[in-house]
Amino acid sequence: MVGMQVVDVPKLAAPAPARVPVPAAKPFLQTLGANLKETFFPDDPFRAVAREEGRCRRAAAALRYVFPCLEWLPSYTLAALRSDLIAGVTVASLAVPQGISYAKLADLPPIMGLYSSFVPALVYAVMGSSKDVAVGTTAVGSLLFAAMLGKEASPADSPELYMHLAFTATFFAGVFQAGLGILRLGFVVDFLSHAAIVGFMGGAATVVCLQQLKGLLGLQHFTTSTDVVDVMRAVFSQTHMWRWQSVLLGCSFIVFLLVTRFFSKRRPRFFWVSAAAPLVSVIVGSVLVYLIHGENHGIQVIGNLAKGINPASAKNLILSPPHMMVALKTGIITSLIGLAEGIAVGRSFAMAKNYHVDGNKEMIAFGLMNIIGSCTSCYLTAGPFSRSAVNVNAGCKTAMSNAVMAVAVAITLLFLTPLFHYTPLVVLSAIIVSAMLGVIDFPAAARLWKVDKLDFCVCLGAYLGVVLGDIEIGLSIAVGISVLRILLFVARPRTTVLGNMPNSTIYRRMDQYTMAETVPGVLVLHVDSPIYFANASYLRERISRWIDEEEHRIKDAGEESLQCIVLDMGAVASIDTSGTKLIEDLKKSLDRKSMQIALANPGSEVMKKLDKSKVHGLIGDEWIFQTVAEACDNALLNCKIARSV
Amino acid sequence: MVGMQVVDVPKLAAPAPARVPVPAAKPFLQTLGANLKETFFPDDPFRAVAREEGRCRRAAAALRYVFPCLEWLPSYTLAALRSDLIAGVTVASLAVPQGISYAKLADLPPIMGLYSSFVPALVYAVMGSSKDVAVGTTAVGSLLFAAMLGKEASPADSPELYMHLAFTATFFAGVFQAGLGILRLGFVVDFLSHAAIVGFMGGAATVVCLQQLKGLLGLQHFTTSTDVVDVMRAVFSQTHMWRWQSVLLGCSFIVFLLVTRFFSKRRPRFFWVSAAAPLVSVIVGSVLVYLIHGENHGIQVIGNLAKGINPASAKNLILSPPHMMVALKTGIITSLIGLAEGIAVGRSFAMAKNYHVDGNKEMIAFGLMNIIGSCTSCYLTAGPFSRSAVNVNAGCKTAMSNAVMAVAVAITLLFLTPLFHYTPLVVLSAIIVSAMLGVIDFPAAARLWKVDKLDFCVCLGAYLGVVLGDIEIGLSIAVGISVLRILLFVARPRTTVLGNMPNSTIYRRMDQYTMAETVPGVLVLHVDSPIYFANASYLRERISRWIDEEEHRIKDAGEESLQCIVLDMGAVASIDTSGTKLIEDLKKSLDRKSMQIALANPGSEVMKKLDKSKVHGLIGDEWIFQTVAEACDNALLNCKIARSV
Repeated sequence: MVGMQVVDVPKLAAPAPARVPVPAAKPFLQTLGANLKETFFPDDPFRAVAREEGRCRRAAAALRYVFPCLEWLPSYTLAALRSDLIAGVTVASLAVPQGISYAKLADLPPIMGLYSSFVPALVYAVMGSSKDVAVGTTAVGSLLFAAMLGKEASPADSPELYMHLAFTATFFAGVFQAGLGILRLGFVVDFLSHAAIVGFMGGAATVVCLQQLKGLLGLQHFTTSTDVVDVMRAVFSQTHMWRWQSVLLGCSFIVFLLVTRFFSKRRPRFFWVSAAAPLVSVIVGSVLVYLIHGENHGIQVIGNLAKGINPASAKNLILSPPHMMVALKTGIITSLIGLAEGIAVGRSFAMAKNYHVDGNKEMIAFGLMNIIGSCTSCYLTAGPFSRSAVNVNAGCKTAMSNAVMAVAVAITLLFLTPLFHYTPLVVLSAIIVSAMLGVIDFPAAARLWKVDKLDFCVCLGAYLGVVLGDIEIGLSIAVGISVLRILLFVARPRTTVLGNMPNSTIYRRMDQYTMAETVPGVLVLHVDSPIYFANASYLRERISRWIDEEEHRIKDAGEESLQCIVLDMGAVASIDTSGTKLIEDLKKSLDRKSMQIALANPGSEVMKKLDKSKVHGLIGDEWIFQTVAEACDNALLNCKIARSV
Repeated sequence: MVGMQVVDVPKLAAPAPARVPVPAAKPFLQTLGANLKETFFPDDPFRAVAREEGRCRRAAAALRYVFPCLEWLPSYTLAALRSDLIAGVTVASLAVPQGISYAKLADLPPIMGLYSSFVPALVYAVMGSSKDVAVGTTAVGSLLFAAMLGKEASPADSPELYMHLAFTATFFAGVFQAGLGILRLGFVVDFLSHAAIVGFMGGAATVVCLQQLKGLLGLQHFTTSTDVVDVMRAVFSQTHMWRWQSVLLGCSFIVFLLVTRFFSKRRPRFFWVSAAAPLVSVIVGSVLVYLIHGENHGIQVIGNLAKGINPASAKNLILSPPHMMVALKTGIITSLIGLAEGIAVGRSFAMAKNYHVDGNKEMIAFGLMNIIGSCTSCYLTAGPFSRSAVNVNAGCKTAMSNAVMAVAVAITLLFLTPLFHYTPLVVLSAIIVSAMLGVIDFPAAARLWKVDKLDFCVCLGAYLGVVLGDIEIGLSIAVGISVLRILLFVARPRTTVLGNMPNSTIYRRMDQYTMAETVPGVLVLHVDSPIYFANASYLRERISRWIDEEEHRIKDAGEESLQCIVLDMGAVASIDTSGTKLIEDLKKSLDRKSMQIALANPGSEVMKKLDKSKVHGLIGDEWIFQTVAEACDNALLNCKIARSV
C-alpha cells in the first residue's frame, strides 16, 4: 500500500503523466459485427463496389466483381490476343500429354484427362481472377483419387463405379471449395503452412515417381498401396519380369525431358523447348512403336480413344450412401490440397506482376470449375504450378489463354484422338516422373532448415508421413505440428526484462541490447503475447520466478531492494477473464510484499477488459502509464518519497 | 529504389540512428535445450536444490522437494497441531456423510466413500504441496464414473464387475495424473479455461441435482441417462410413484442445509455450523427413521455397512481389454477434471495465504493418491472445493489436517459404521443437492458476460453441452471453442495505424488515442501478433488494404503522397518462414510503387530470422530502427531529399 499513501505528492513534484484512456463502451452487436467483418472480410472485397455512385454503376461493379472477365474484356486488345494465343497453344501442347498421363495415374480412362482441360478451362476464363493460372488436372490430386477411391471400388474390376465415384468426389470437392469461398472461410487453407505444403508435395511426388516404376519397368502386376516399403517389395520381388525395352525407352525419354527442362531454365527465351518436349516425346514414342510394332514386344500402348468432346455425366453422380461417403471424404481432402496449391500459385505470380488475387474469389472459381466439370465427364482440376509456369513464360496476358487452350484441346478431342493409339504408356510414365522431379523442392527444404528448424520439422513430418504412411497421415502430421506450434506459442509466451537504453527514455529487451541498464529498485517485464487462459498460470509462475530471481540477485549484490514491478503491456494484444484474474492476483500478492505494480502502454482492448473486471480500479489510474519510461520515473519518485517518509 | 540512392546523405545531416543488432547464432542444440527447458520447466522447480551447496544439503533439498511434508514437519509446533486437529475433525464431520453420499452417486457401495477419505488423505499429507486442500471424492467425478462405467457394466446386475471397473479407472487416472506431472505436461490442464470449468461444473452440478430427484421423490425406477430431457420424462412419467414422506423429509433437510450455509457465509466465525450440518442431518434423519420405523413407510435407508478399514483391492484391477478400454477412457477424462479443479482450488487458497503451489508436483501427489487408492478399495479422489473451504475456515495450518481427518474417518470405519444403518437415502440426496447448488456459480457466469462475451460463450457451451448432451460433449465443446479462439487470434491479428503523440517522440494507436497525429507521407502500421503461416496471407491482404485506403484518403484530401511504410514490429514476438516471405514480398511490391519500407523495434528472434532468410539484407540495415520515431524521422528526411533531387 506504499503507492496509495504518497500518490498525490509526485503530482506536485513532476508534471502528471498523461493517462491511458478507457475506450467508450460500444453496443455488443456493433462490436460483434465489426469483429465478424474483420474475420471474414479482411480485404473488404466490396469496397470497389461501395466506392461507385449510382445504382447502375454499382450493379456494373458488382458484376465485374463476380465475373472478373468483365474487367479485362472491354479493354482487350489484339496485341493481348496474340500473346494469349501463343501462350494458350503452348500450354495445350503440354496439357494434352500431361492430361493423358495424369488420368492414367488416377486409374481413369486417358480421355478424361483431355476432357478435364476443356470445360474447366472455359469456366476459369470467365470466373478466375488470376491472369496467369492455367487450369488442369494435378499429379497429386490424381494420385489421391487413385489411393482413396481405389479402396472403395477397384478400377480394374468395376471401372464404371470407380469413374462415377470420381465424378462424385469432384462434385463434392467443387461444392466444398465454392462453399468455403462464399462463406469467406478462405483462412482454413492458411492453416496448411508453406512448410507443410513443401513437405507434403515432395512426399506425394516421391510416391508418384515410385508408382511409375510399374510403367517404366513394364510390370503387369503391382501393389495398390503407396508407401515406399510396399512399393520396393513389389518392385524387387519380380525382377525377372522387368522388360529392358520398356526401361530403355522410359529412361531415354526421362533424360530427354530433363535435359530440355534444364536448357529452358538456363535460357528463358527458349521456354517452348521444355513446354513442347512432352508432346515431342509422345509423337516420337508413338511413331517408334508404330514402326517397330512395339505392342508385340511387350510395350503397352494407350489404345483406342473415343472421338468427340465431353459427354454429360451429371446423372452419374452418386448421391446416396454408402459410396457417397468415400467420395465426400476424397472430395474434401483433394479440394483443400487443390486450393492450397492453386491459390499459392496464383498469388505468387500475381505478386510478380503486381496485381491482387482474392483468395475467396479464387475458391469460388475453382469450386464452380469442379462442379461444372463433374457434370461434363471431368475430374478434379486445379491450378498446377508446371502448367501455370509455362503459361507465364509463354507470355500470357489474361485468363483468355485458358480459353485458347480449351479450344486447342477441343480440336484435339474432335479430330486428333486416333493419333494417340500407339502412344506407349512408358512415355506417359516418363512425362509424369520428369514433372514430379521438379516438384520435390530440395532448396526450399534446405532454406527451411536454415531459417526455422520447427518449420523444417513440419516439412519433414509431412514428407515422411506421406512416403512411409499414406497421404492422409502426412497431411494430419503437417497440420497437427503446425497447430501445435501456434498453441505452444500462446501457452508459453516469452517474458523478458527491459532495461533503459543509455541517455534516452527508451526501454528495450536486455537480452537483445547489451547496453540497456536496469533501473535500480524497479523490474520492467515485457510480455509478448495475449494473456489467455492457456498461459495465465504459466505467466503467474514465470513472473513470480522473475521477481524471486531479481530479489536474490539484489540481495547478493547488496543493491537497493525491489520496489516496483512495471509490466510492459505494449505487446499484449488481448486479455481474457483468466488474464485479468492474473493481473488482479499479481497486484494482491505484490501488495502483501509492499511492492507496487505499474502497467505501461496497455492497448484499448486490454484497458476495456481491465476496466470491466474492476482490475483497473484496483490498480488505480495513477499506476497505468502510456510509456515504460513514465512508469519507471513515477515508481522511482514514489518509492523514494515513501522511503523518506 | 528511392531509398538506395540517397541513403548516405542523411547520415551527414542527422546523427546516425543506433542499429538493431542481430543476435549471435547459437548452436542448434543449445537453443533447443533452452526452449525445452522454458516449455517444460518454466518455474525451474529445482532452483532451490541447485542453490544449496554440498552433496548432503542438496540431497536433503531434493528430498524436501519430493516430500513437501519434510519442509514443514521439522518446524511443526504444538499450536499448529491444535489448529490442524480442529480443522481435521471438522472436515471429517463433513467428509463422512459427503463420502457416503458421493459413493451412492457413483453407484458404488457407500462404505467406499469412507475408504476414499482415509488412505488418499494420508498420501496427500505426505506428498501434497498445498496447506489447504482437503482431499476426498468429488460429486462430478462420482457422476462421471456412474455415467461412463455404467454403460459397460450395470451396477445393479453386476456390482462386482462395476466395482472392479471403478478401481481400474481410478488406477488409470492416477497413472495419467502422475505421468503428466513427471513429464511436466501440466499445461495440458491450462487448456481447460476458467470459463470452461465454470460452465462444465455448473452443468455437472445441474445434472447431479436432477439425478437426486430419484432419491428425493422416493422413486424406485429411474433413467440411466443424464440429459435433462430424459430425466424430466422419467420424473413426470411416474408422478403416481412420488412419495410425500420422502419429499417432505428431503425438502426439510435441503432447507436446513441451505440456511446453515447462508448463516455461516454471513458470519465466518460460525463456519462450523455449516460444516457440521450434514452430520447433524444424518444423525437427525437416522434417529427419526429409527423411531418411526421409516423403512416400513417407503423411506429407503443405507442398511448394513461393513466394519473395518480399507481392504486391499490391487488384485481386482482389470488390466486386459475389452473392459480395460472404458476404464482407461473414464480414468483419463476424470483425472483431467479432478486435476483442473484440485489445482485451481490449491492455487487460489495459496494465493490468499501467499505461498506457491507447483502444479506439476500437485499432479504427482494426486496421481500417487489415486494409484495407492485404487489398490486399497478407494475410488477417484481429488481436492474438492467445499471440503477445502471448510478446512481453511476451520483454521488448518498444514497438510497435517488431512492426516487428522484420515484418522477420524478410520475411527468411524472401525467403530461407528453400524450407526449409519438407519440413515435415510433421502438425507444423502439432500446433502448432495445442497452441495451442488453451491457449485452452480451464477455470479461468475454474469461476470464472464460482462467482461468477455466469448468466455461467456465457452461457459454457456460447456453448460448446455453437459445438460442437454452428456459430459463428454460439454467438455469437447468447451475445449473446442477455447482452442478455436486461440487459433483465430493468431489467424486474424489486429493491425492498427500509429500516430505521433503531440510534442513527443512517442507513437501510439490512433484508434485509442484521439490526439495522435499522422506523419505526412508516412504510414505507421503496428502488428500485434507473431507473423506465422496462419496469418501471413491475411496480413498481406490487410496491409495492402491499409496502403490502398491511405492512398485514397491522401488523394481525396490532396495531401503529400505516401512515401514510406513503417512496420512497428515491437509486438511481433516471432516469425516463421511464411512471415519472412511476407516481409520480402511487401518490400518488393513497395519497391515497384517507389515506396520505402522501414521496420521499427524488431525483437532478437525476428532479427535472427530476417537475417537468416536474407530479408535483412534486402531491406538494408539502414531501414531497420530501434524506435518508430527514428524510422519516421529518417523516412521524412530521405523522402524530402529524394524529392528535391
